[in-house]
Amino acid sequence: MIIVIRKDAGKDKLEKLQNWLKACGVTPHVSVGERQTIVGCIGDVSQIDEGRLSAMTDVVASIKRIQEPYKAVNRQFHPQDTVVEIPVKDGPPLKIGGGNFQVIAGPCSVESEEQVVAIARAVKAAGATLLRGGAFKPRTSPYAFQGLREKGLEILSIAKKETGLPIVSEIMDPRDLELFEDVDVLQIGARNMQNYELLKEVGSHSKKPVLLKRSFSGTIKELLMSAEYLLASGNPNVMLCERGIRTYETATRNTIDLTVVPLLHRKSHLPVIVDPSHATGVASLVQPLSMAATVIGADGLIVEVHNDPPHALCDGAQSLTPESFAETMKGIANVRPFACR
Amino acid sequence: MIIVIRKDAGKDKLEKLQNWLKACGVTPHVSVGERQTIVGCIGDVSQIDEGRLSAMTDVVASIKRIQEPYKAVNRQFHPQDTVVEIPVKDGPPLKIGGGNFQVIAGPCSVESEEQVVAIARAVKAAGATLLRGGAFKPRTSPYAFQGLREKGLEILSIAKKETGLPIVSEIMDPRDLELFEDVDVLQIGARNMQNYELLKEVGSHSKKPVLLKRSFSGTIKELLMSAEYLLASGNPNVMLCERGIRTYETATRNTIDLTVVPLLHRKSHLPVIVDPSHATGVASLVQPLSMAATVIGADGLIVEVHNDPPHALCDGAQSLTPESFAETMKGIANVRPFACR
Amino acid sequence: MIIVIRKDAGKDKLEKLQNWLKACGVTPHVSVGERQTIVGCIGDVSQIDEGRLSAMTDVVASIKRIQEPYKAVNRQFHPQDTVVEIPVKDGPPLKIGGGNFQVIAGPCSVESEEQVVAIARAVKAAGATLLRGGAFKPRTSPYAFQGLREKGLEILSIAKKETGLPIVSEIMDPRDLELFEDVDVLQIGARNMQNYELLKEVGSHSKKPVLLKRSFSGTIKELLMSAEYLLASGNPNVMLCERGIRTYETATRNTIDLTVVPLLHRKSHLPVIVDPSHATGVASLVQPLSMAATVIGADGLIVEVHNDPPHALCDGAQSLTPESFAETMKGIANVRPFACR
Amino acid sequence: MIIVIRKDAGKDKLEKLQNWLKACGVTPHVSVGERQTIVGCIGDVSQIDEGRLSAMTDVVASIKRIQEPYKAVNRQFHPQDTVVEIPVKDGPPLKIGGGNFQVIAGPCSVESEEQVVAIARAVKAAGATLLRGGAFKPRTSPYAFQGLREKGLEILSIAKKETGLPIVSEIMDPRDLELFEDVDVLQIGARNMQNYELLKEVGSHSKKPVLLKRSFSGTIKELLMSAEYLLASGNPNVMLCERGIRTYETATRNTIDLTVVPLLHRKSHLPVIVDPSHATGVASLVQPLSMAATVIGADGLIVEVHNDPPHALCDGAQSLTPESFAETMKGIANVRPFACR
Repeated sequence: MIIVIRKDAGKDKLEKLQNWLKACGVTPHVSVGERQTIVGCIGDVSQIDEGRLSAMTDVVASIKRIQEPYKAVNRQFHPQDTVVEIPVKDGPPLKIGGGNFQVIAGPCSVESEEQVVAIARAVKAAGATLLRGGAFKPRTSPYAFQGLREKGLEILSIAKKETGLPIVSEIMDPRDLELFEDVDVLQIGARNMQNYELLKEVGSHSKKPVLLKRSFSGTIKELLMSAEYLLASGNPNVMLCERGIRTYETATRNTIDLTVVPLLHRKSHLPVIVDPSHATGVASLVQPLSMAATVIGADGLIVEVHNDPPHALCDGAQSLTPESFAETMKGIANVRPFACR
Repeated sequence: MIIVIRKDAGKDKLEKLQNWLKACGVTPHVSVGERQTIVGCIGDVSQIDEGRLSAMTDVVASIKRIQEPYKAVNRQFHPQDTVVEIPVKDGPPLKIGGGNFQVIAGPCSVESEEQVVAIARAVKAAGATLLRGGAFKPRTSPYAFQGLREKGLEILSIAKKETGLPIVSEIMDPRDLELFEDVDVLQIGARNMQNYELLKEVGSHSKKPVLLKRSFSGTIKELLMSAEYLLASGNPNVMLCERGIRTYETATRNTIDLTVVPLLHRKSHLPVIVDPSHATGVASLVQPLSMAATVIGADGLIVEVHNDPPHALCDGAQSLTPESFAETMKGIANVRPFACR
Repeated sequence: MIIVIRKDAGKDKLEKLQNWLKACGVTPHVSVGERQTIVGCIGDVSQIDEGRLSAMTDVVASIKRIQEPYKAVNRQFHPQDTVVEIPVKDGPPLKIGGGNFQVIAGPCSVESEEQVVAIARAVKAAGATLLRGGAFKPRTSPYAFQGLREKGLEILSIAKKETGLPIVSEIMDPRDLELFEDVDVLQIGARNMQNYELLKEVGSHSKKPVLLKRSFSGTIKELLMSAEYLLASGNPNVMLCERGIRTYETATRNTIDLTVVPLLHRKSHLPVIVDPSHATGVASLVQPLSMAATVIGADGLIVEVHNDPPHALCDGAQSLTPESFAETMKGIANVRPFACR
Repeated sequence: MIIVIRKDAGKDKLEKLQNWLKACGVTPHVSVGERQTIVGCIGDVSQIDEGRLSAMTDVVASIKRIQEPYKAVNRQFHPQDTVVEIPVKDGPPLKIGGGNFQVIAGPCSVESEEQVVAIARAVKAAGATLLRGGAFKPRTSPYAFQGLREKGLEILSIAKKETGLPIVSEIMDPRDLELFEDVDVLQIGARNMQNYELLKEVGSHSKKPVLLKRSFSGTIKELLMSAEYLLASGNPNVMLCERGIRTYETATRNTIDLTVVPLLHRKSHLPVIVDPSHATGVASLVQPLSMAATVIGADGLIVEVHNDPPHALCDGAQSLTPESFAETMKGIANVRPFACR
């Protein structure tokens, strides 16, 4: 961290600042130039409260960060890839990350036992290794279908029993954690990426793998800081998920920047999953995007599949049919050997 | 709502769609053109699940909304301004909206009794009528100061008793509602605008005024839909708050579009508050922006004031001193008679 | 096009509107509902000036477009892929589009004959089929290197003679068209996507292939409308180029949405080229992104290669070395058989 | 400028970098820390080509700018406000900036002599001091009205003769400069903010005041750099114009951040004009926004006025009638005494 000093700041203020920095545990190095005085901070700057520092407007002109503010998720301090393991009944655990690639598939919403079991069987047959399904649904409108809630989780458990596929489902309320006992991967949705009370609850009361989605306007740094909340609270089993961001372009629902996949891999050791369904909102774009995400180095995909998209209770427009999902899985398998990692 | 029909959709599919629309309670009007067939929906379309409709890709080519999806917050169905009332000990309630303008001021974070009481007295002397203060703080970093929590609420209560100012404080967790008994206005922060579990809890278990902040990438429609959650759950006392959005521009912390003030007033009957402190992140821009917000027709402002900004535990850079706040209040008073409403 | 009529508009105004629409060459269909009256326009609506229509605020409440405003570039009216042909000395022309894939490579700026010829040889050896090089350079700062201009074009001609590679270079000023006689593909840069005087000049005075880059905040519709300028002026040989857009995210220079590749292919018959170098601004991300762009269906790539990136006069940070370019070409060749088209 | 050195860079590379920096005219100061080595550059860094520096990836890890890259437009080097003067026949020149405030008004497009003269008289009567009118129109669609061109400029001259109002009109092509002899203020539109050939032509061949509009996705820094092109080419009479930027929000045509007005005043000595018509695209929002822009400290406004908005050939929806413009002028006059400057 570099601190640019105000031209009119006297020696005593500069000294006071240096003492404050030392108290925060870093070593300040002062360079006095003809036109500018600069303080370089060497040491662990993650404990410095940048907001507070920038408020010292009598001495601080501006601040330039050099090191990242995250630590537990930072590859610099943890060079090897994190491999998240998901237990599977009667078998070795599934692995994601560090060269292990998995496809999560299933309906947007859990609608009925019949539906979920049918889809689970179909996606398993096509090669998916985890089942997704929303029981608690965040919907923009209070009048839209809000999910089957507890009943939805029970149905997912049945599908898990029937197919052996571990399940991924979204948790929206810290009070619900107990209900998710049989859920294998806790999804934290885009709208809750900065719901810190939920992150702390999930981080401190569970060691289950967490799929953390990037919010609509979340920066890469903020996504990593939210993951840092989970790790700092005690749960190291975190997967990051890119699902498209909000931009001025309205031709697709979101704008997905696949470049973040290799970029996140450089900055962090956590696995990176791509969600091509929410990114585009259009079923026919899911296969091309899935293949591109695989090639660019994603550790996994999460894809919406519905046995009857036109009658899905939620997001049918972006759901693949089991047939087109099977086709997509073939495309993924074709390019997987050439993936960039 | 206008539904454009696929060119290759047969009569039976069109009929099936018409029946489905009727079952949703709307009357479909079909116009068959040479090149396009269109179905206009007349009636209350807020019950139609647009995601589900757009998934009927065998018959629906595209959908164009004409009416807004919100109802309770819609000025069309509620032409007169909502006036939110906040009880005041030993006096008539404070009013916001419908021509009533109030300034909420106070520190970003509650730090100590001494600090809060001093600031409360100063902002009251300058003309503020409500006290703000954060006890539970949403911070990007898990290592930054997270607020004094329960203790912070107790301190706010003391300041309220001392000054008579009603208090505004942010709630982040639905489990905390009981702790907010003495808080007069519940703030729902930008990061929680789409935390629907929190909205439902606050909407159904409280009738207290709610200050709902627009999220970093929330559209006006989404802000109104989140307000709709509160009203639909039973709480009509909602104030909308513009605090700047996230754009490509990095010269200011956020980009605040003051045009939303008159725009929200047309679309909704709810009062609109502007937060110039978070919008800019720079104390010296707060006064000009406060005056502009007043002139363009805001029903109130929420301003950060700290007695010692350089040593504030949070967001000091954007906090006014009591002196510059008093100056700002004078500027506001000068232009208030010419406000556009 | 659907026009929603104001509730308070009388019959005479509605009739006047209908006459105006007929004069524009479209057939209006009026649907009178209980709560809303709607006019559907059947026919060629590309001649309707939407700005003018929306100004008729005494009768028009809102407008919903159903057909796209572009025509010559629209796949609906030109279902087969456009194949752009670039003449090659002593051989059959190079083809781009309709299943033909080419890689354009070369330095950001032309610096010297020695440099360009060396890079041209190297990229040809690695499999590139066109040479790029900037002679006229758009730079944010007036103090940055602005290109060798005429001299730069002469150097490109020499490299073309030496290697047989056709050349691609950016034109910024309509007065310069004559200077580009020996240039095979005219590039119109992102900053000039809406420089309509330049588009009209290039469209009406040249039949040379044009590489049209999407601007920093250009929508897909605007990109297609700018291409429409070229086609409407008389030049059908247009290639669209995605190079990343500007968003709130600052971790990469731009945010590239590869989903636009299949999307543009649906909306238009023109070839789509991807520029992974400008999209990321980081050399080490160019290979993964090039491979992903190939898989998702791009008709070509344009890649910056420099023989000595650290000493490049412009954009060295994003340039590949000839060695890493050769590596990238191998990766592209591996996945090309599985490309989604 | 601070340069962070790679950990693995040897002494010789660091020395080579220091020599390169000295050759660029700056003095490098090296601070060797335990974990990081940093080079601070003292002196005029505006001549350093940042792209080139960042490409030296064998020695440079990252670059942090401290000083701004612009110089001629920088208030730091030119503390007093620039006052732009516009000559007026038979009278003292009009002044903009440094406490002088003017309102420019007129139609989007010049349509006929009768129209322009009528509007010119009306806006003059209401208090406008300059007449705007587009003769050359940048339109997204090649099929939309493109302006009367030369004929339009002649009509503006007639209106100028009739009313004495100096005229403001947009130039789009460097070849047209001669045609603008009788135009008093050359407008460079948002789409041409980075048309550097046009900027250089206008900067070097004219001393006329220039109204430079911010582009749809132009940063404040880029706007200032484009102004720098004009000043560096020889024309110091530049006014900056904020007209709204492109964001994810679609409820208004653009998002205008009025905060840039005081911000630009801090960074630069050039006057700042606000365009409330293009910013919102909605006539009824123009008055509130005009008043807010006045209060926040704009040096002038540019407002679209049409005598018959529903039949305007361009942008009628955002044009005021002469009556509502007169009303707006009263509102502006009311708040002008309290403007923040």
